[in-house]
Amino acid sequence: MGLSQARTCKRIMKRKICVVVTARPSYSRIKTALQAIVDHPNLELQLVVAASALLDRYGNAIKNIESDGFTITAKVFNVLEGQNLTAAAKTTGIGILELSTVFENLQPDVVVTIADRYETMATAIAASYMNIPLAHIQGGEVTGNIDEKVRHAITKLADYHFVASDGARERVIKLGEEASMVHNTGCPSIDLAIDVKDDGKLDFDPFAKYGGVGEIQDLDNGYYVVMQHPVSSEYALSRKQIEETLYAMQETEKPVLWFWPNVDAGSDGTSKGIRSFREKFPAQRFHFFKNMEPHDFLKLLNNCNALIGNSSVGIRECAFLGVPVVNIGTRQNRRERGNNVIDADYNKEEIVSALEKIAVQERPGSSNVYGGGNSGLKIANLLADLPLRFHKTLVY
Amino acid sequence: MGLSQARTCKRIMKRKICVVVTARPSYSRIKTALQAIVDHPNLELQLVVAASALLDRYGNAIKNIESDGFTITAKVFNVLEGQNLTAAAKTTGIGILELSTVFENLQPDVVVTIADRYETMATAIAASYMNIPLAHIQGGEVTGNIDEKVRHAITKLADYHFVASDGARERVIKLGEEASMVHNTGCPSIDLAIDVKDDGKLDFDPFAKYGGVGEIQDLDNGYYVVMQHPVSSEYALSRKQIEETLYAMQETEKPVLWFWPNVDAGSDGTSKGIRSFREKFPAQRFHFFKNMEPHDFLKLLNNCNALIGNSSVGIRECAFLGVPVVNIGTRQNRRERGNNVIDADYNKEEIVSALEKIAVQERPGSSNVYGGGNSGLKIANLLADLPLRFHKTLVY
Amino acid sequence: MGLSQARTCKRIMKRKICVVVTARPSYSRIKTALQAIVDHPNLELQLVVAASALLDRYGNAIKNIESDGFTITAKVFNVLEGQNLTAAAKTTGIGILELSTVFENLQPDVVVTIADRYETMATAIAASYMNIPLAHIQGGEVTGNIDEKVRHAITKLADYHFVASDGARERVIKLGEEASMVHNTGCPSIDLAIDVKDDGKLDFDPFAKYGGVGEIQDLDNGYYVVMQHPVSSEYALSRKQIEETLYAMQETEKPVLWFWPNVDAGSDGTSKGIRSFREKFPAQRFHFFKNMEPHDFLKLLNNCNALIGNSSVGIRECAFLGVPVVNIGTRQNRRERGNNVIDADYNKEEIVSALEKIAVQERPGSSNVYGGGNSGLKIANLLADLPLRFHKTLVY
Amino acid sequence: MGLSQARTCKRIMKRKICVVVTARPSYSRIKTALQAIVDHPNLELQLVVAASALLDRYGNAIKNIESDGFTITAKVFNVLEGQNLTAAAKTTGIGILELSTVFENLQPDVVVTIADRYETMATAIAASYMNIPLAHIQGGEVTGNIDEKVRHAITKLADYHFVASDGARERVIKLGEEASMVHNTGCPSIDLAIDVKDDGKLDFDPFAKYGGVGEIQDLDNGYYVVMQHPVSSEYALSRKQIEETLYAMQETEKPVLWFWPNVDAGSDGTSKGIRSFREKFPAQRFHFFKNMEPHDFLKLLNNCNALIGNSSVGIRECAFLGVPVVNIGTRQNRRERGNNVIDADYNKEEIVSALEKIAVQERPGSSNVYGGGNSGLKIANLLADLPLRFHKTLVY
Repeated sequence: MGLSQARTCKRIMKRKICVVVTARPSYSRIKTALQAIVDHPNLELQLVVAASALLDRYGNAIKNIESDGFTITAKVFNVLEGQNLTAAAKTTGIGILELSTVFENLQPDVVVTIADRYETMATAIAASYMNIPLAHIQGGEVTGNIDEKVRHAITKLADYHFVASDGARERVIKLGEEASMVHNTGCPSIDLAIDVKDDGKLDFDPFAKYGGVGEIQDLDNGYYVVMQHPVSSEYALSRKQIEETLYAMQETEKPVLWFWPNVDAGSDGTSKGIRSFREKFPAQRFHFFKNMEPHDFLKLLNNCNALIGNSSVGIRECAFLGVPVVNIGTRQNRRERGNNVIDADYNKEEIVSALEKIAVQERPGSSNVYGGGNSGLKIANLLADLPLRFHKTLVY
Repeated sequence: MGLSQARTCKRIMKRKICVVVTARPSYSRIKTALQAIVDHPNLELQLVVAASALLDRYGNAIKNIESDGFTITAKVFNVLEGQNLTAAAKTTGIGILELSTVFENLQPDVVVTIADRYETMATAIAASYMNIPLAHIQGGEVTGNIDEKVRHAITKLADYHFVASDGARERVIKLGEEASMVHNTGCPSIDLAIDVKDDGKLDFDPFAKYGGVGEIQDLDNGYYVVMQHPVSSEYALSRKQIEETLYAMQETEKPVLWFWPNVDAGSDGTSKGIRSFREKFPAQRFHFFKNMEPHDFLKLLNNCNALIGNSSVGIRECAFLGVPVVNIGTRQNRRERGNNVIDADYNKEEIVSALEKIAVQERPGSSNVYGGGNSGLKIANLLADLPLRFHKTLVY
Repeated sequence: MGLSQARTCKRIMKRKICVVVTARPSYSRIKTALQAIVDHPNLELQLVVAASALLDRYGNAIKNIESDGFTITAKVFNVLEGQNLTAAAKTTGIGILELSTVFENLQPDVVVTIADRYETMATAIAASYMNIPLAHIQGGEVTGNIDEKVRHAITKLADYHFVASDGARERVIKLGEEASMVHNTGCPSIDLAIDVKDDGKLDFDPFAKYGGVGEIQDLDNGYYVVMQHPVSSEYALSRKQIEETLYAMQETEKPVLWFWPNVDAGSDGTSKGIRSFREKFPAQRFHFFKNMEPHDFLKLLNNCNALIGNSSVGIRECAFLGVPVVNIGTRQNRRERGNNVIDADYNKEEIVSALEKIAVQERPGSSNVYGGGNSGLKIANLLADLPLRFHKTLVY
Repeated sequence: MGLSQARTCKRIMKRKICVVVTARPSYSRIKTALQAIVDHPNLELQLVVAASALLDRYGNAIKNIESDGFTITAKVFNVLEGQNLTAAAKTTGIGILELSTVFENLQPDVVVTIADRYETMATAIAASYMNIPLAHIQGGEVTGNIDEKVRHAITKLADYHFVASDGARERVIKLGEEASMVHNTGCPSIDLAIDVKDDGKLDFDPFAKYGGVGEIQDLDNGYYVVMQHPVSSEYALSRKQIEETLYAMQETEKPVLWFWPNVDAGSDGTSKGIRSFREKFPAQRFHFFKNMEPHDFLKLLNNCNALIGNSSVGIRECAFLGVPVVNIGTRQNRRERGNNVIDADYNKEEIVSALEKIAVQERPGSSNVYGGGNSGLKIANLLADLPLRFHKTLVY
């Protein structure tokens, strides 16, 4: 057998890894793994971009993906309008319908689904029903909301589990999965934070680069970052909840950089709360951003006085960076955390008091609770090496 | 407050229980519960019939449902043609899309989903995503095929678990569910077997009543019943598997009453195996039925020499009735069983030898391993009494 | 046969008329017909509300429908997010999928579809494919955009044609429809204008009643109303087009009451144009409304100096009311018009010059070109009397 | 500019022609055009295979397509099970949903849809809504059933019309289409018949090559071919209609080669009629085929005594080949025909008497009423040369 033939065989035997990205935050959690798949000699990336990752008003993740140099294999528009729970269910149904056609035409060897947003269930069902081995990134976490139903149900559909912490690994095994299929790779989002941690000056002007709404602030004497998503199973409350945070931040004295929530049932309540607040209190210290490139966002966090809200970024990246966090409400309940986090209820006073505490404390040290920076590579290697299989049974 | 007002209030407070029936066998597993819901003073039944339960070539369960006197609230056609795995995924996607509209319009207080067929996932997702409390009938069983992924994923989406055996209850609790939400009600299909067990003569002529294909047999000296479904994750094998059974039964001497398989990826392989066998060996002792009323079917079983195949009827109803069963292949792997079952591989010799063993043994006694006959009532009472909730978290 | 029996028979023979309302403007065009159907002794109304008629950000027509006292039989969420052409196609696909289930469950005798928005095709296809006689309101008009493809395709699927002008009737017959099935009923939206025409004072304060965005204006010395929708087949141009109008209105001196566009591919371009304009020119004479009850809207028109934009209201209701209109662009191309309309290109100068002309002319008289005020009743009577049929063939 | 650059430019400028094939008979009607597109220097073929063309029980057209050497760009499973009218509507809805994703990802310059089966509407809507120029093959024909609604509605959505006869061209123009966009190319299915006509011996053994069901017949002394499809708007009648033909053929004396109907609402009635007939009259002169390669099928026709049924093959290919046809019922009503056709009602006596007439008549001559054999090439050339446009308006 000559050289060129050998090469052909090798090419033929590359595993086709189909990753489905459905939202802006999911992209941050898979980006370094995508690159490691592209770079791996035995893997071929099939990248499907779907759902809110395609939509302008949820941050247009597809633009970042393209500008990062990834080739998009297929796009699937499947977000049903309504921003209510019925729409979330229907978005998932359409996703299954279409992703199964995509998989039928791409014939991947493994499908990868990320985290626990409701529409990721579509990826999980299409793949598992079609007997395509399914890898799940970031199962096993506990948060106490609807995401948890989704997350653990996907665990039961998935064949490989790439979890982000020891606690998560333990839980996935308790859920009846075979230990050899459950790997603590850490979270790939931490990979992005490595050079920010080492040399993370705020070397760009966020107002010039990203526009946003509100007056330009002087960030030299510190600032706060807020990112608070609606919690889908408490739809009606989302407006009240955001208002507690708004009024708490109103009491502070530093500039407040506020990020719009992502798409979810209830985001309307949140958005309305913000809009109505803005009308009452014409922008002074508040500036609103829609989105930021992940790397810039990490730099912004690395230099802030605290992150306020319920984003998992506070639990993960901020632990690694050592950024103080006021974590509000139930969304991150029971997720493992470093010592950078102070929890608060949806309550103005509690938030204000947490910020006061942070103001007088020393900055927390870095924690590897969600990984130490090479998760993407670990995931790619596992995808290349794990036996292909889609058949499993409860271990107990 | 006068009497008539009180009555009005009570009526208003009836819980609306929406049960989605998607297949003929699921109907048997819920029928007595449906009746108990209708009869319960504090419950109102919303009955949705969908998927293969509407289709002629899968036994037209809707006819039975109507002739049993139930009022159908909505019908949803959602089976995508193809009988392959892609079609199974897409059927589920369409199911979600449509059932969420149905739930939106019916506004049920609780949704009930039955067992583990792939399309039942649509019911589970639509309900749980819409924050409607979800009850799951017959979780916690282990069988070692794709159904298991579906079954346990639904457990993770469901709020109430009405399981059919002690082992199942234990497993659902291990899966992280709160014990107070996991109830061993037994299987409602056993309820149907109660009077058959007590007085179960074969008091009808199956050939006259159900037609079918093949010559009329004399059943007075005993007969076998065969019911073997394709196993979806072993699609390509289904033809070979059915042939082993066909050739085994060819070696016996009693009449063979054969039931067509239900809808599943792979049923084509099974059907073709049967058709091609029939062309080679023109019907002598074999008679093929498409369907039978559950009650008649139970009588037929109660009087047969053995049930052969992989139907769960062999594990459940036959345990209660004390009917000998040759259970073939992996489909019922690890399900609890009474002492009526002999397991065999997809292998002619093993099947024949199991039948020989049965021929010389005493008939097994009755076992309550899957319930003792009042499951439907237990389920209705739980549906009326359990607290309404759709929020949960892993217990560990 | 006794009286009570006779009554029963009559009830049984009521024709079930299923009307599908998919958008705010369609509701205005059917409202009086809905009432006439409810009032008709031989008709029963089945009202389905779907698509953007259910969504807050397109004016929430369902609220008006409910407050007008109509009972809603079913709701169908089917708008796919994206506001691009792909989303329009997919919204239609989902609509067919779901409306056919609705029709399957409601079993209507006749289905009614209104006008020519892209998603109305879903109603037309579901009904005609299911052999349900289909009535189409407002076929036969020519406008020169994608709506025209939709409108005439629906004509070819429909069995009854209730058109709004003589020209439309002539065209539908030319399209090969049997003349006895083509009736000029006029447009039901005109029915709503009758009492406004007779006694149409502006007897409410639009700012107090509808809020909106922008400063409160003094309307005593006249004002303009603007309503300009994106034109779907010229997506990229929509921003430029809206800007011409914005800058034209900037040159006028009276208050400008501006209505947000409805949902359509391209509305993003339009919305962005408006938002960006508002940021540059902080509201002085401009006030933006999202929606208004139809009756109030007609009063507002009846008292304005001119309507500017491309809404068909300018062509229809304003003809009847005698309100001057500057009709911009291609959207109403070739629709019959009274002498109240001056056409202008997407061009600031042309718009300004048309407004100058209007300022010095006498107010135009009333025209019955789109009906004289009893269209709803005519439609209900035809629905009760026309023979039920779904089979047709080209007349040539 | 060097040669290689020029080549690149040319490649870039190739028009991408996306043809959607949804059924076995449609493939025959486009095959030579597909080849001409592949061969054309300025065209690139994107071939999408969908609906029943993918399904085994409707003849598995995809196998023919692959064995003919065409590369399939995408497959879309969208046939909803039920074989009733609701399923036809839903199949179309799913088709739109999925084809718009396919078009989004393929970005074709022109989409081609074939004939008038209900699901072809999905292609037409997805393309026209997405502003992709749409070419329609075989519009303008009149047949008097539901297909006609579909066919003319597609005409109103299409931009280019490649019709098969002069009468059809005239009708499409009457429907308001611009004459320069309406071309009588003839029917590409005729292209396939050219060499059969010149040298069309029955040079293969249909029983050996295609199996089928029933006894082997001696074809040397002539034989009949039957092909009768259910007529969808007369669902309930389909069983009775097929029985008239079955009993008529029972009265003849030559072998009868019978082809199973394609997928349609009602095919169940037809299939049941055939099956029940077979049980009563055990196969003697009847042999049943599921499918045949088009070329073999034409040879079989070319040598038969008559074709009986309602297939358009009798009207088209048989006119060109000069094969006598008994055309039954309404399906081909008002389609232009050569002098090879005798029309009969669904009536045993009429069919028998038509066959007696044919037996004593001279064989009819060849007619070019549906084209003379180079339609595929004509279509490819038009697709390369017509101006790209998707905007049109009624000509009157």
